[in-house]
Amino acid sequence: MKVYRNNRPPLYIQVHPDDNTAIIVNSGGLDEGTEFPCGLKLIERIPQGHKVALRDIYEGEEIVRYGEVIGYAKTTIKKGSWVKESLVLMPTPPKLTSLTFSNKVKEVLPLEEEFTFLGFRNEDGTVGTKNILGITTSVQCVAGVLNVAVKKIKEELLPLFPNVDDVIALNHAYGCGVAINAPDAVIPIRTLQNLARHPNFGGELMIIGLGCEKLSPDRLNNGINDNILILQNENGFMNMINSIMEMAEKKLKKLNERKREKIPVSELVIGVQCGGSDAFSGVTANPAVGYAVDLLIKSGATVLFSEVTEVRDAVHLLAPRVINEEVGKALIREMGWYDNYLRRGEADRSANPSPGNKRGGLTNVVEKSLGSIIKSGSTPIVDVLAPGERVRKKGLIFAATPASDFVCGTLQLASGIHLQVFTTGRGTPYGLSMVPVIKVSTRSELREQWPDLIDIDAGKIATGEATIEEVGWEIFKEIIEVASGTKKAWADKWKIYNDLVLFNPSPVT
Amino acid sequence: MKVYRNNRPPLYIQVHPDDNTAIIVNSGGLDEGTEFPCGLKLIERIPQGHKVALRDIYEGEEIVRYGEVIGYAKTTIKKGSWVKESLVLMPTPPKLTSLTFSNKVKEVLPLEEEFTFLGFRNEDGTVGTKNILGITTSVQCVAGVLNVAVKKIKEELLPLFPNVDDVIALNHAYGCGVAINAPDAVIPIRTLQNLARHPNFGGELMIIGLGCEKLSPDRLNNGINDNILILQNENGFMNMINSIMEMAEKKLKKLNERKREKIPVSELVIGVQCGGSDAFSGVTANPAVGYAVDLLIKSGATVLFSEVTEVRDAVHLLAPRVINEEVGKALIREMGWYDNYLRRGEADRSANPSPGNKRGGLTNVVEKSLGSIIKSGSTPIVDVLAPGERVRKKGLIFAATPASDFVCGTLQLASGIHLQVFTTGRGTPYGLSMVPVIKVSTRSELREQWPDLIDIDAGKIATGEATIEEVGWEIFKEIIEVASGTKKAWADKWKIYNDLVLFNPSPVT
Ligand SMILES: [Ca+2]
Ligand SMILES: [Ca+2]
Ligand SMILES: [Ca+2]
Ligand SMILES: [Ca+2]
Ligand SMILES: [Ca+2]
Repeated sequence: MKVYRNNRPPLYIQVHPDDNTAIIVNSGGLDEGTEFPCGLKLIERIPQGHKVALRDIYEGEEIVRYGEVIGYAKTTIKKGSWVKESLVLMPTPPKLTSLTFSNKVKEVLPLEEEFTFLGFRNEDGTVGTKNILGITTSVQCVAGVLNVAVKKIKEELLPLFPNVDDVIALNHAYGCGVAINAPDAVIPIRTLQNLARHPNFGGELMIIGLGCEKLSPDRLNNGINDNILILQNENGFMNMINSIMEMAEKKLKKLNERKREKIPVSELVIGVQCGGSDAFSGVTANPAVGYAVDLLIKSGATVLFSEVTEVRDAVHLLAPRVINEEVGKALIREMGWYDNYLRRGEADRSANPSPGNKRGGLTNVVEKSLGSIIKSGSTPIVDVLAPGERVRKKGLIFAATPASDFVCGTLQLASGIHLQVFTTGRGTPYGLSMVPVIKVSTRSELREQWPDLIDIDAGKIATGEATIEEVGWEIFKEIIEVASGTKKAWADKWKIYNDLVLFNPSPVT
Repeated sequence: MKVYRNNRPPLYIQVHPDDNTAIIVNSGGLDEGTEFPCGLKLIERIPQGHKVALRDIYEGEEIVRYGEVIGYAKTTIKKGSWVKESLVLMPTPPKLTSLTFSNKVKEVLPLEEEFTFLGFRNEDGTVGTKNILGITTSVQCVAGVLNVAVKKIKEELLPLFPNVDDVIALNHAYGCGVAINAPDAVIPIRTLQNLARHPNFGGELMIIGLGCEKLSPDRLNNGINDNILILQNENGFMNMINSIMEMAEKKLKKLNERKREKIPVSELVIGVQCGGSDAFSGVTANPAVGYAVDLLIKSGATVLFSEVTEVRDAVHLLAPRVINEEVGKALIREMGWYDNYLRRGEADRSANPSPGNKRGGLTNVVEKSLGSIIKSGSTPIVDVLAPGERVRKKGLIFAATPASDFVCGTLQLASGIHLQVFTTGRGTPYGLSMVPVIKVSTRSELREQWPDLIDIDAGKIATGEATIEEVGWEIFKEIIEVASGTKKAWADKWKIYNDLVLFNPSPVT
C-alpha cells in the first residue's frame, strides 16, 4: 500500500500496484488543482473517500482497485479526474460454475503465546461472555405481555441477583401467520431454535408461548421441559405476569451462581461484520479486523464472517481458500440460493450498496465486496453455514447471511458468536443485547465525532499513524478484555441494543 | 340460526338451514351417546367447537356450513359422527375470472340517532382517539439509541405534560439492507409514510434517521422540515440523546394543548380483525362485530376489514357487494397478487389455518373464511385498498393485508384506523400502542378465564343468553366510549402493546 502525504498533506491511498484508481484520504476532500508529490494533479474537486484516476482510463477499459476489476469505463476518464459512479459500468458477477477451489489454502501457524479470557463455563462445556436471563417466544402474540413482565423483572428481581447481567426478551415477528411449511421456513425456525441455545443464557432460557401458534413452543426447548409457559393456560393477565415472575426468579437464582473463570481464547466464537461502509472500510478497519481474525484463528478460535451480497462479487477470491471441494460446494450453494432469492423478488445485487455507501465513495457492490471480504483475513475457510446454522467446526467459517446489519447480527447470534466486531465508516450506533459488540471506525473523523460510541479507531491507518498490524493487535486485545467483562464496549455502557431481526424469506399469510 | 339447549343442555349450532353440519357448543365437548332434543345422537365423542354430521354425508358429497360448501367427504360420514379434518377434501378456491360484481348492493339506511364521541380535532381536519408523541425511524440502525431516549422522555418529560397519553417509538426492520427498488418495496415504504401521518400523532411526529440509509428520512416527513433529526450529524451518543430530548420537549408542549371535543361518529375509521379464531368466531363474535359494523356504516363512519388469506375462499360472497366494477377489479387485483405471492414462496392457502384454529374446530381455510368475512356486516363495499394505503372514502372498505395479526394491525394503522375491534376464540392478549383495541371473545369460557383481558363476551350468543343484535349494539357503544377515552380497553389499562410488523414482500440484501 502506497500512502502519500505532506505537511498539509494531500493524501491518496493506492491499495495495489496494478490499481489505476486511488482514494482521497483528506477530510473534506481535495480541490481541483491539488498536486500530489508524485506529480498527479486533480483536474476536478474530489470528495473524501472517492476515487481519483491515476492515469487516463479509456472507454471500455478496466477500472482497477484492490488489484481487481471493479468496473469498466463508460467514457474515457482523464488522469486526475473523479471516477464517479456514473462513469463506471458494473462487471458481471463471477460465474459460480467456474470457481477454482482449495488452491490457496495456507498453513495456520499457531501464535507462540497462548491467550486466555475470563468467561462463564456452562454445564454442557460451552462458554459464555455474558450472564443473561433469556426469555424467548414462539410467537409475537405474547410480546406485549412479556414486555410488561420483563420491565417488572428488571425493576423488582434483577437487583437481587448481582451476578446476572441482564434480562432479555427475544421478541420477533415469526411463529404464526406465516407459511410454516414453505421450503424456506426452515431458516427462521432454525434461527429461533439456535438463538434459544445461545451459551450466554447458561442453559436457563425461558420460553413464553401462546398456545395456538403454528410454531409449537416445545420446538424451541431442546428437551428441557420446565422452561415453557403457555399464556392460554393462565387465568388472565395478572396470573400471566405472576407466573412469568415466578419462573424468572427460579432461573435468576441459578444464573446468579455463574462465575467467570480463565478459559483459552480457542474456545471463543467471534463474528465480524461491517455496516455503513465507505471507501476506507477496505483499507483501514476491515484489513485490521482481518489481521485480528488471523490472530484469533492462530489462537485456535473460531471466527464467522458473513454478508452474502458483499461476498458474491468477490467469491472467486474466497473459493481458493476453502479447505476442500465439499466446503466449496456449500459456498456455491449459498451464493446460488441468494441469486435465486433476489431474482424471485425481482431484485439484484445492485440493490447494495446504500446511498450512504456511495456518498462514502463506494461505486458499486464489486468495490464494496472487495473491501468487505478483507475482514476474513487470510486463513483457510473450514466450513460454510447456511443462515442460522450453529457452528460445528473450529477455524474460519463463512456463515451465509444477508448484509443487513441486524439480520446478519441475529443470524450470527444463532450460529453462536460470543462477541461481534463491527466496522463502520459512515457511522452507526449498532448494538446487540446478547453479546458485546466492538465498534471500529474506518476514519479518525468518525471517532472524533463519536468518541462515546466508537471503541477503536482504524482511521489512523489511512494517515500512516498506525499500521494494519498494530490496529489488528489492538482489536485482538480489546476482544479479550471485552469478552472477559473487564472492559465494557460503548454499546453495553449505554445499553444501545437493537432488536433481533429474523431472516424469513418465505411468505406471511 | 337454530340453537338447541336443555337443562344440562347438549347444544349445537346450525348456522344455515342447508347445513349438513353443526358445531358443538358445550364446554369440554360432548360424549358418545349424547342425544339432542331433535333426536340427533352422537355416535362418537366430539370436542367443543367441532362439527357433527346432521345426516349421513356420502363419499364425495358436499359438506355444508354457513350454507356454503366447505369441502367434500373423503369417505361416508355417518349422521352423529365427528366431521374431522382428515375426512374433508378442500374445494378449489373461487375462480377470480368468473366473479359477479355489484348484484347485491344494499341501500344503507342511516340510523335515526346521530352518535358522537369525544376526540381530538387536528389542524388538517382529521380526528384522533389518543394524544401521542410518535417518533418514527427511517432505519433500524437508530432503534437502540431511540429506545434509550424514549425511556428517558417517559421518565423525565412525559409527567410534565398530563394531556399527552404516551410516547411511542415506531421501530421497524426496514430502511436499509433491503431491495428498495424491487417492485414490492412500495408496500413497506408506503406503510411507513402513512404510519407517520397517523392522526393520533396530531401532526407533531418526530423522525429519527441515521444519515446513510436507503430510505431517506425526508420521505417520511410529509413536508414538515423541523421534524427530522439525523444521528450521523450529532456529536456522539450523549448529544444524540440531548437533541432527541430537546425536540421531544417542543413537540410535547404542543401536543399538551390538544383537548377532546364532541365529534360525529361519522368521522371515525374503525378496523376489524380476528385472531386465534375457532369455530365459534363465525357464529358469535364475528356476526356481532358485523352487526356493529353495519351500525357504524349507518352512522356514516368508515370501517376496514382485511385478511386476504381469510377472504380469498369467500370472495364470491363479497364480489356482489362491491359498489362498481372498478372496486371489483381492485378486489381481484389484491386476491391475484396474494395468490402469486404465495406461489412465489412455494406456499398456498393451506398454510392457514393454524393448529390452534384446527383444535378449535376449524377444518380448513374455507370454513375459516366463511366465519371471517361475517365481520364485514352487510353494507356495500365502497373501496379496496392495497396494503398500507390510506383511506380515501367513507363507508365499508376492504383493506388488503395478510391475516397475520400484527401485520394486519400495522397495515390498518397505516390506513388510518382510530380503533380496532379484535375477535378471538383461542385467546390472544393482542394490543396496539397507537390506537385502542377492543377484544371480543367468541366463547364465554375465554372471558371467564381472561376477565382482565377480554373487553366484551360474544360467547353468550352461543348459549342463547344474548342475541347478535344485542352484542352488536354493545360493541358499537363500547367503541364510542373507548374512542372517547371515557373507558379504557384492557390492553391500554395494562399497556399490552405488540410491536409494529411491516409487510415487506421484497428481498433483504
Ligand atoms: Ca457490510
Ligand atoms: Ca452489514
Ligand atoms: Ca421491539
Ligand atoms: Ca383472522
Ligand atoms: Ca388476524
